Order: sequence, then structure tokens, then C-alpha cells
Amino acid sequence: MSETAEPMYELAHLGHAELLTPVYEQSLEFFVEVYGMDLVQESGGSAYLRAWGDHDLTTLKLTASDRAGLGHVGWRTISPQALDRRVAALEARGVTGEWIDGDVGHGKAYSFRTPSGQRNEIYYETEKYQAAQGKKSYLPNQPQSSVTRGAAVSRIDHINVLARDIPAAREFMCQTLGFKLREHLIPPDQPEAGAWLSLMNKAHDLAITREPADTTGRLHHLAYAVENREDVLRAADVFCELGTFIEFGPAKHSRTQGFFLYVYEPGGNRIEVFAGGFHIFAPDWEPVTWTTEGQGRSTAWGLDVPASFHTHATPVLP
Amino acid sequence: MSETAEPMYELAHLGHAELLTPVYEQSLEFFVEVYGMDLVQESGGSAYLRAWGDHDLTTLKLTASDRAGLGHVGWRTISPQALDRRVAALEARGVTGEWIDGDVGHGKAYSFRTPSGQRNEIYYETEKYQAAQGKKSYLPNQPQSSVTRGAAVSRIDHINVLARDIPAAREFMCQTLGFKLREHLIPPDQPEAGAWLSLMNKAHDLAITREPADTTGRLHHLAYAVENREDVLRAADVFCELGTFIEFGPAKHSRTQGFFLYVYEPGGNRIEVFAGGFHIFAPDWEPVTWTTEGQGRSTAWGLDVPASFHTHATPVLP
Amino acid sequence: MSETAEPMYELAHLGHAELLTPVYEQSLEFFVEVYGMDLVQESGGSAYLRAWGDHDLTTLKLTASDRAGLGHVGWRTISPQALDRRVAALEARGVTGEWIDGDVGHGKAYSFRTPSGQRNEIYYETEKYQAAQGKKSYLPNQPQSSVTRGAAVSRIDHINVLARDIPAAREFMCQTLGFKLREHLIPPDQPEAGAWLSLMNKAHDLAITREPADTTGRLHHLAYAVENREDVLRAADVFCELGTFIEFGPAKHSRTQGFFLYVYEPGGNRIEVFAGGFHIFAPDWEPVTWTTEGQGRSTAWGLDVPASFHTHATPVLP
Amino acid sequence: MSETAEPMYELAHLGHAELLTPVYEQSLEFFVEVYGMDLVQESGGSAYLRAWGDHDLTTLKLTASDRAGLGHVGWRTISPQALDRRVAALEARGVTGEWIDGDVGHGKAYSFRTPSGQRNEIYYETEKYQAAQGKKSYLPNQPQSSVTRGAAVSRIDHINVLARDIPAAREFMCQTLGFKLREHLIPPDQPEAGAWLSLMNKAHDLAITREPADTTGRLHHLAYAVENREDVLRAADVFCELGTFIEFGPAKHSRTQGFFLYVYEPGGNRIEVFAGGFHIFAPDWEPVTWTTEGQGRSTAWGLDVPASFHTHATPVLP
Repeated sequence: MSETAEPMYELAHLGHAELLTPVYEQSLEFFVEVYGMDLVQESGGSAYLRAWGDHDLTTLKLTASDRAGLGHVGWRTISPQALDRRVAALEARGVTGEWIDGDVGHGKAYSFRTPSGQRNEIYYETEKYQAAQGKKSYLPNQPQSSVTRGAAVSRIDHINVLARDIPAAREFMCQTLGFKLREHLIPPDQPEAGAWLSLMNKAHDLAITREPADTTGRLHHLAYAVENREDVLRAADVFCELGTFIEFGPAKHSRTQGFFLYVYEPGGNRIEVFAGGFHIFAPDWEPVTWTTEGQGRSTAWGLDVPASFHTHATPVLP
Repeated sequence: MSETAEPMYELAHLGHAELLTPVYEQSLEFFVEVYGMDLVQESGGSAYLRAWGDHDLTTLKLTASDRAGLGHVGWRTISPQALDRRVAALEARGVTGEWIDGDVGHGKAYSFRTPSGQRNEIYYETEKYQAAQGKKSYLPNQPQSSVTRGAAVSRIDHINVLARDIPAAREFMCQTLGFKLREHLIPPDQPEAGAWLSLMNKAHDLAITREPADTTGRLHHLAYAVENREDVLRAADVFCELGTFIEFGPAKHSRTQGFFLYVYEPGGNRIEVFAGGFHIFAPDWEPVTWTTEGQGRSTAWGLDVPASFHTHATPVLP
Repeated sequence: MSETAEPMYELAHLGHAELLTPVYEQSLEFFVEVYGMDLVQESGGSAYLRAWGDHDLTTLKLTASDRAGLGHVGWRTISPQALDRRVAALEARGVTGEWIDGDVGHGKAYSFRTPSGQRNEIYYETEKYQAAQGKKSYLPNQPQSSVTRGAAVSRIDHINVLARDIPAAREFMCQTLGFKLREHLIPPDQPEAGAWLSLMNKAHDLAITREPADTTGRLHHLAYAVENREDVLRAADVFCELGTFIEFGPAKHSRTQGFFLYVYEPGGNRIEVFAGGFHIFAPDWEPVTWTTEGQGRSTAWGLDVPASFHTHATPVLP
Repeated sequence: MSETAEPMYELAHLGHAELLTPVYEQSLEFFVEVYGMDLVQESGGSAYLRAWGDHDLTTLKLTASDRAGLGHVGWRTISPQALDRRVAALEARGVTGEWIDGDVGHGKAYSFRTPSGQRNEIYYETEKYQAAQGKKSYLPNQPQSSVTRGAAVSRIDHINVLARDIPAAREFMCQTLGFKLREHLIPPDQPEAGAWLSLMNKAHDLAITREPADTTGRLHHLAYAVENREDVLRAADVFCELGTFIEFGPAKHSRTQGFFLYVYEPGGNRIEVFAGGFHIFAPDWEPVTWTTEGQGRSTAWGLDVPASFHTHATPVLP
């Protein structure tokens, strides 16, 4: 993007993600009973779930598979016209995707693989959630009654994928889809180790961090938001009481400044409970370059990152 | 806007507000010592202030005047081109504004009065804050060290103005500037009593509520954000310890679901400490119509609104 | 107590309360599903409940009755010897009580009416809760897994009864049982309106406030604690979502400085969700006398007290 | 203590601690500007400080010395009579202490060394803090206006000393002074590694953990309390902004369940910011024995303990 170009607002938000799991029943139980989501429907070997604050019908598709990983990630455009423009931009760049008819919760979508190997889709038509009588909130600006079960996550927030070549991966997302680079990490004498991108006012909707293995298409983690840091602390107790392994946190991220907690769902996918994060309002935000860990710390308050955080991803490699 | 039109993202954010005060010194002391802002500079009979999390040089201009009120409110566009487009749209609608050279913190701006009588300006060129050595944060993605003084507000959040004819006032802002109507309140057999509008992902950047008097151009309140509801509770103690009158709160709004606390600064302007509020990601958000107080409550948990909240505004009428 | 007397530590804590309700099934559902307690057993027309952080087997007995109110309140002594000493002190003062065999959760108790007409009992032998396998916490210093259901109250905290003659009522409790007067409210030219008493380090275990009617023995409210103010805010949403009427709060008390939220359970008894409150460590604490509302406010931040808070109590008078 | 003995309530609370520092000026600046305490007076080469919620005149004495460490720790008895009884009990056990005339904030005290080598004193007469006009709180039950400076700690909470023989150290404190053993840690095939003791309703006023070196009398840490976990999180930002090294936390303790954050003050003494912790009301509390780290975790949510936490203490050994 040249300096005189205007910022592009063509994608509206992270719409949904499909997670693959080799232990479908246990994963489903985790997302409902521990993470606190609601099951919308099961069909075709998949479960469709939603968090209580999601306005769309479903934001998580859970699919039985031989191994864990990311089925695909879906981004909603701001309009049907923007969908066509983004497909044209993708194809102009040589992407070979395909139109699919849609799925539970959304209409036709253009599906393609990014340079880092994850399947993405973009779409506009969406089914909004309509709460049944017993689930209506006392607040008409909320899609359904809030939930207190388990970690009680409130809405889909962001996704973190791995890439061997982070500059290439992020430039692709920025140039074809209008993501904005907000922060990146370039350790001294090393290639770029992480990039945090967003669409409008969030610190990140998408993180791309370094793939340590000779592979592509892997998922680092999927995150849902809760409203306050206290909710993250409360989630830590919930996970401990219910036997879910905590890998990392609760603590404060240096990048995004969000408050985090990472666990593994039974299928092996890393899942985050996230709160806060700064907001970005400047249309000419200068990407923050973290040049060393020393400058900015791995985490804001100095907590060390466990080794697994740099190596574990799904699919788990043999 | 017809149904097939695309959403417009032309304004980026609330940039700054100018408050008038008949007791300049006391107001300045309030904003620094009690509200927790930093003084950037004083010049021309005005003080320019910033909150620690504001990325722009200044977001509040405080000007000595014979009475309290709103000097003007400034909105930043997403680009120079968007600034030109918005001026063209305003003038096409018959607005007669004027270009001004700029002010501390921003460049040339187009200044005009909205139908409800408040002076607004739109601009693009902005001076970013550069922290001096002793004020740099340990986090390079934060404009300066966080502050603990007083209520320690972190960034400008939204403004609430009064209008006699709310539908006309909000349609003007939506059609010429790209605000989106998120929620409005239409009590039974009464005219519209309030409208909440935003630009991108917030529940509101601008609220327009009913002017009870036969006048125009008044301010209901200006709000800065803190990060958590606990910070709002902490601010309540700060205000009580420092002798600032609390008018309303802390409690939870029904509209926006933000957590609020209202005080009067010494000049008489109503000032809010605000946290949270839901996020809006859907590009086709359907405005929520609150048809009765009974449906949605004045405040989320049922706390009554004090009478002054419906009558006090600045300038105070004789 | 003369000035040279030593402070008396003879009662250990509020042990349990029995609430009467004319709508037993609805009240039981409230305490389990909305307030978040666990049902321990039902027998003899009563339900015995516990909060997840209560170390005793049961802290709430819910009994079907023709009208709401307080069945009795039970205080645990620090030892069997202290039980005997307190009974001797009560009888020396002319109290005519009776020994009862005990109840679910505790052994023999001495039951008597206080001057303000509430039935109290003191006892020492207690049955501790032993979590069944599926309910054991991951933390061995916690009696059972924490609960996320409803308001998820964690432990019994305090009780507030009404008395026509507050000085007489509180002096009785102090002199016979070792309560300490921590704060009291004496509005100008009026009789004492409230007294807050505690046993060891809490700001209050027992509050006695003014009975507005020509009656005795009434309950103002029973309170369970949650751990943080955020939990009180979260409870407000829970009550609204589940249709429980909020009478007052969330806000901060001036007396005790606790953070409060009051609702009515379906039987009509007022129930509080409480967090915080200052601690009292000084053995020679000087009671704080609040002489006017102006000095100290009805609530810490100025929120008005609803009229019902001064008039509603159980049994509701015809 | 045999089973039929009554619990002893003879000490009221942790009264104060004296810390030694080789960098007096820097340490004093830390406690005032970073930790958020107020300086009461300087005299005799020592500074006397208080936290805003301390009811006593001073709770921290900071003394210039050639090396860091604990000068002494002071415990207040519940009465003058209890002071005499405890001195008699100490002397009956063979302790050779001495009466001292008192110090700023308290009267005559009996000073002695515990078996683990720390100097302790017990006393009754205390000077209460009287806020000057400008420091009076709006709440008459609070000793002074709350403070927002730095970590803004609110009151002294507990102290942790080291001992080579923990069972001997804790039994001495229990039998002579009436401390109660609440929890202890006995790793498999190892000697007792830690003991947590309290006086009345707190989970701990005193912790005794294992001295790794062949020495006596060392301090592990001194802790002041803040009101909420959010205050601990806020303190972490304060420490980072002001350049104070964070050793450990914020996280949740397994023992006591408090929420913690440890830093080193410039003199090298470890200082904690602490919130929460469960309450103990049962007069017959059964000490919780943590037999393995696996059973209960080093910290509640699994965060590893840094090696320095087991080795660093003051005086630092050559």
C-alpha cells in the first residue's frame, strides 16, 4: 500500500472457524460444558456452536477428523460488493479458489488457501441468531441471555495461524483483503517472528506467528473473548476444577495488551480465553516493531513463555 | 441509505472536544488532578490536555468562557480524500461551513454547525503524541506511561449532544458523515428520545438525546474511557475523596451496556467515566429500537435516572 | 463492658439461618438455580443448603411456612466450654431458653429469643462438609469445587435483623455473647437507627436496624458473600436475566464499605449478595458513630436508598 | 494443644515490621512513590510509614543498615493482660527476652528471638492514626483518604520468615503466642517445607518456609494488601512503568488462595502485593496438609515458581 492510498475497510470481522478434532465427543463436551458455548445444531458430522454474545447463528464448527487442526476460517465482508471486489483481488493475485454454496449460518463463500496454507473463506450472507423465548435476554441489544456455565466465553475474537514466511503471509492478507499490520516482532538477526493484524478497531483479529516445522497450514490458537480480566481469572479456576490443562496464563500480553489464558481442548487444539486489548482508532496507525524481547518482553509483566507455546500447534506433527 | 448501499467508513474516530468553562483554573485542576489527564500546553486562553492512552497529541481543549458548554467537537476522517468527500457531501446538503487552519494537534479542518446547533469540525492531519524520555511506557505500543493519578482516564471515548429533533439530527450525521445508527429509544406516543451512533466497532461514538428546552447547541456530556469496571468503581472513591459531586452511577447502561459514572466538572459540564460497552462487528447491524422504558429499563439493572440527567446540560439556561 | 475489660472471643461465626417461605418450591429453586447454592438434603419439610465455600455441611435451612421470615439464626461458639459460659451468661441475664437436640449439620443448641424478638441459637458441635468424589475441588483447602451457576455465592456472611430499641438490642448481644459494636448510626434528634456488630475480623456479622412497625422479630436481610465486586456486578446480570427483582444496588455501603446487591427471593425475604467490607484487627476498635446522613451518606457514593429498604421486612405485615 | 483445649485468641494482629536496607533513600522512595505508602516521620535513622488503610500510626519502619533484612516484627496483643500472659508463657518456655520502652507508634514491648532467629516483639499500647484535615476520608470509618499513587497498597497483611526446622518454629508460635496452624506443605520423603499460620479469621498472618542455607533469622517477604485482584494487576503495570523488577506473579496461591505479586525493593527485600485469600471461621479448623506439589500445585493455576523464590532471602548471603 503506497503512502497516499486510503485504508481499506472491506472485511468486517472474523466470522467463524472450523476446528478438526480426533475426539469429537470430548471436544464437544469441552466447548459446551467447560468453555461455556451453546450447541446450535449437529449435522453432517459437525457440531455448530455459538457463544452467548455472538450475533451470528454460529461461530464455531467442530468436525470429527483423524487429527486436530483448522478446517477453515471464515471472514465476513462488509457488503456483497466487497465480496466480489475481494475475490477479484485474490484472483488478480493468482489465487485459485472456489465458490461454495455456504454452510449452516452463512451463504455462498469463496474458499481458498493462503500462502501459509490455511483454508480461508470470505462471504457476506449471514444468518443472525434469533433467541427462542426462553433464551431471550432482558436486554434487547444482546442476542441471548448471558450464560454462566464454565468459562462462559462471550464472543469469537481472533485466530492465530502459523507461517514459515511471515512477511509474505501478512502482506498477502493486507493487500488482498484489507488487513492492517498493527504490530510485529523482529528479533535481532532473525526473521520476523510474529505479526498482529486487524480489520477495524481491534488490536488484532488475526495473528501470524512463526511455524517452527517444515510444514504449512497449522493453527496456533483460536480465541473467544470474555468481558473483563476478572472473567479470565474466573476461567482459570473453572479449567482447574474441570480438569482442563492450562498451558499459559493468566497474564498480560505485550503485543495487543490483552489478558490471556491458554488451554488445550481435548482434541489438542490450543484455545484462548481473552479479555481487553487496546483499541486502534488511528487510520494511519504506524505498525509497532518489537525489535527484541528485551525491549518489550514476551509478556507484559515478564512471565516467561513456555516452550510448548513455540512448538505445539495443530495438526500435531508425527 | 437504501438497503443495497454499502456501509460508509469515512470518519475514523472522535478526535477531540473543546469545553468552555467559566472557572478555567478550577476546571483545569479538575481535569488534571481529579480526572487524571496530562496538560500538554496552554496557549491562547486554552489548555490542551490528553489522557495517557490517547495516541493523538491532545483530545481535550479547555477554554475560558463566560459560561460552560461545548466549544466544538472534532472528528478525524480516514484519509485526506475522505475529508474532501465529506465536505462535498456536507455542502451538497446545503451546509455552510468554513475551512480553518487548524489548532494545536491537528491541521486544516472544515468547521460547521449541525442541525442541532453544535459546532463540529472534520479534519485529517493530526499530530501524534511523542512521549518524552521520562514518560515513555515500558510497552512500545502505548503512547506513554500509564497514569495512576485521580480517575486516571485512559482515552477519549464518546460525546453526547442534545437535539430537539433527534431523527433529523441523526439522519444528518449518518448521511453526510457515515455514522451508523446502533440503537434508539422511542417511548410510546412520544418522539424519539435518544439515538446512539457509531463509526466502526464501538457501540457509540456519538449519542444524541432530547433537548428539553427551547434552545440548541447544548452538550449533555463528554466521556473518557477506563479499562475495566473496577476502574469506574475506583473512580467513584476518587471523586468522593476529592469532593467531586457524583450525579449518577456507577451502574450499567441499558443502551451500549457500558458501565458509567457521571460527575460535573467545576465549570458545570457533565463528564463521564466509562468502561466497556458491547462491540458491533456486523456491517448490517439492525438498529435496536427501545420502544418503552419497561422493555429495556433506563439502566440495565433498574437504577432510576435522576431528574437532573434529563434537564441539566451546558450551557445552563438562565 | 468496662474499659479495662478484655475483649471477648466466645462466638466464632454466623453458623446458619433458617428462612421461612410461603412458596417453598419457588424459594428452593431460587436458592439453587439463581443464588447458586447446592441442596444438601430435604427432610421434615425443610431444605438444607450450602454455598460452595461453606466449610460446614449446611448454612441455610429453608422451611415451608404460612409466611416469610426468619425461623432462627445460629451462631457457633469457639468451644464447648464457651457454649456453656454463654448459656450461663444468658441465663444470668434472665433469658429463658431451651436446649434442643440439634438439627442437620449441628449438635445440641441453646435456643432463645433476643430482646428484639428473633429466635437465636448457639451451639458448638458441627458437621463438616465432606465433598463426594465428583465434587472435590482441585484445591484441598476448599470444601468443594467452586460453582458457576447463577450468582454462585461462596459463603454465608452476615444477617440483618430489625429492633425497635437498637441500643438495648446491641448491648444484649455484646454483653451476653461477645459481639463488638463496630459502627452505629444516630441521626440528629432521632434514636439510634442502626448498629453493625462483629465477632472477630469482619466489619459485621450482625446488623441491627430500626424496626419501623410496632412489631418484633423481623428479618431485614440475609447475606452471602462472593469474592470480588465483579462477582456482584455479574450477579446483577444473572438476576436480571432470570427475572429476579433487584431492589437496591450494586453499590458501595458507607457502613462496612461492602459492595452490595439486594433482591427478594420468591418468598419475600430480602437477600443480599455481598463482597468486601473492611477488616477490623484492632482489639480496641472505637465504634464509629455516624451522626448524620450528611456526614457519611446513606451509601458511600451517594446513591439514594429506596423507600422499601426502610419499610420492607419479613414477615410482611398485613 | 490437646483436643479438648480451647483455641487461644491472645494476639490481635501483625502490628508492624522493621526492614533494614543498605540503600535507605532508594528504599524510602520505593515505598512512597512505587508501593504507595505515606511517610509519617523520620527519626533516628529510620523512616516510619503507613498504608492509607492502616488504623495504626505506622506499620513499617525502614532502617538504614549495612545489609537488607528484617529488623524485627511486632505483634499486638488483644489486651494488656494478654501481653503479660504471653510474656509469662514465653519465659516459661525458656525464652530470654527484654522489655523495651516502645517506639514511634507503640508503647512498651517485649522483644525476643524466635527459634528460627528472627527478632519479634509483642506489645499492646498503640497510637492510632489521626488524619490531618486535608487527609480525612469522606468515610469516617476509614483512617484517611484512599491513595492512588503507585501500587496504592491499603494495609499491612502478613510476613513470611524462613526457618531450618519448620515444625519447631511453628509449634513455638502456636504454643506460646496462640497462632493457629492453617496449612502446611510436606513433600514426600522430605521435611516440612512450609507452614501458614493465622490469629483469627485470615488464612495467614505468618508464613514460615524452609531456609535453604545454613543460617537463621532471614526474611522471605513482607506483604501489604490491596482490595481486589484488579488492584494487583494494576500494580503489575505500575511496577513495570516505574522500573521495579517483578520476580513472580500476578497469580493465585494454592496455599491461602490469595492473589499475589512479588517484587524486590531497592534494598533487596522481597515485597508482596496481596489480595484476597480465604477466610477461616471454624474454631476447630483442621490444618490442611499438602503432601505433594502434584496434589495441590505450587500455585493454584499451575504457574511454576521461579528458582529465586526458593533461594533469595534477606540478608542475602555472601
